[in-house]
Amino acid sequence: MNPQMMIVNSQIDIPTQGDNHVIDLTQDVRQAVAQSAVADGLATVFVVGSTAGITTTEFEPGLTDHDLAAAFERIAPRDAEYLHEQTWHDDNGHSHVRASLLGPSLTVPIVHGQMTLGTWQQIVLMDFDTRPRTRRIVIQIIGNGDPS
Amino acid sequence: MNPQMMIVNSQIDIPTQGDNHVIDLTQDVRQAVAQSAVADGLATVFVVGSTAGITTTEFEPGLTDHDLAAAFERIAPRDAEYLHEQTWHDDNGHSHVRASLLGPSLTVPIVHGQMTLGTWQQIVLMDFDTRPRTRRIVIQIIGNGDPS
Amino acid sequence: MNPQMMIVNSQIDIPTQGDNHVIDLTQDVRQAVAQSAVADGLATVFVVGSTAGITTTEFEPGLTDHDLAAAFERIAPRDAEYLHEQTWHDDNGHSHVRASLLGPSLTVPIVHGQMTLGTWQQIVLMDFDTRPRTRRIVIQIIGNGDPS
Repeated sequence: MNPQMMIVNSQIDIPTQGDNHVIDLTQDVRQAVAQSAVADGLATVFVVGSTAGITTTEFEPGLTDHDLAAAFERIAPRDAEYLHEQTWHDDNGHSHVRASLLGPSLTVPIVHGQMTLGTWQQIVLMDFDTRPRTRRIVIQIIGNGDPS
Repeated sequence: MNPQMMIVNSQIDIPTQGDNHVIDLTQDVRQAVAQSAVADGLATVFVVGSTAGITTTEFEPGLTDHDLAAAFERIAPRDAEYLHEQTWHDDNGHSHVRASLLGPSLTVPIVHGQMTLGTWQQIVLMDFDTRPRTRRIVIQIIGNGDPS
Repeated sequence: MNPQMMIVNSQIDIPTQGDNHVIDLTQDVRQAVAQSAVADGLATVFVVGSTAGITTTEFEPGLTDHDLAAAFERIAPRDAEYLHEQTWHDDNGHSHVRASLLGPSLTVPIVHGQMTLGTWQQIVLMDFDTRPRTRRIVIQIIGNGDPS
C-alpha cells in the first residue's frame, strides 16, 4: 500500500532579548509534529534572518545564560574588528559571524510520531543580535501519515 | 487527494579561489526550486569534499571577505600544529577542521514555491582549502508538486 | 507515474570512549541506504543526546585524534568556567558547548542509490563527554524507490 506522504508547514513569531538569548522551541516543534499526524519523517526547524541560529542543548540556565555565550565570545568577540560594521555603521558584526557558524537550520527524525530527541536535549533558538527582535521560525513536517 | 511527491536532483560545479572564499549560491538554489515546480518541501544544499562548508550569511563584502575568515582563524589558525599535515605532508589541516565545524549541508524549507530565507540571508559556500578548487554542489529538492 | 515514496528508520548503538572520540559512521549509513532501496532522497543521521555531534571529515588519525579536538579546546576549553557544572556538580560543561556548536544532525543527498559524499569525506560521530558512553544514532532514509 502506498504510504500517504504529507508536508505540513507552520510558523511562529518569537520575541527575543537578543545578546545570545537562548529560547526553548521544543514544545512548539513537538506540537507541530503532533498536529501533523506524521508517524515517520523529518521535522525541520529554520530561523529566518542572518543573526540567529538553531541547535540543540540541555536547556538549563548555566548553559543557556552563560556557557554558550562565553564560547561564542571566544570565537567572535563583540569588540573585535568587523568590516561589516564599517559597511553598515552598526554594531552587530559578531552577531552575523556567530549565526553563520551555528547555522539557521536543524532536522530531527520523527519515528512512531515522536522526535528522536534525548531527555536532556532541547531544540533552541539562539539570537545573537544586539537588540530585542521578533524571530520568525519556520517548522516543516514531512513524512508518512500511516504508522509504519 | 494524494499529493504528488517529487525529488529533483541537480548539481553545479563552482570554481573557487580557496582561502576562505565565500560564494553566493542563492540564485542557483532558487533556480533549482523554481524548475522543480515543488510548492512545499525541502531544499538541501550539500558540498562534496572535506575542506569546504555551507551556511547562510548576509552576502556583503565586510562579512564575506574579512569577518568570517577572522573567526575561523581564531578557531583553527592556519599556523597551528596539525597532525593531518604530518600524515599527508600538505598544508591544509586548518581547512579540514574549519570545514568539519561549519558542516557540508544545509536544509531550507520551501513554502508556496519559495525558500523561507530572510531578505539579508543568502546561502553560501565557504571554501577553506589552500588553493583554487572546483567544487561540486548537490542541490536536492523534495516535496509536493500540488499547491497545498 | 507516481513515484513510490518511502521512509525507512534504523538505529544503531555505538560505544565510545568520550573525550572527543571521533567514530566513522559511513559504512553504517551506507548500509542503511542500500537496505532501504531508495534511489533518490535524503539520508539523515542524528545523535540522541546533548554532548555529542555529527559532521563529516576525512577520517585519518591526524584529524580525528588531534586536530579536531585541538580546535574545540580553543572554542570551549575544558578548564574554563562553566556554570553548567555548578548546576549539576559535574565536569562536562565544555562537552555540552562543543556539541551545540557542532550540531546533532546531518543530511546527505542520495542520488542514484548512493550518498553524494566525496572520496575523503566520511560521516562521523564526535563524542565530547568526559566518560565512555553508548550513543544511539538514528538513521532515516526518505525518498523514491523508483530509479528516476
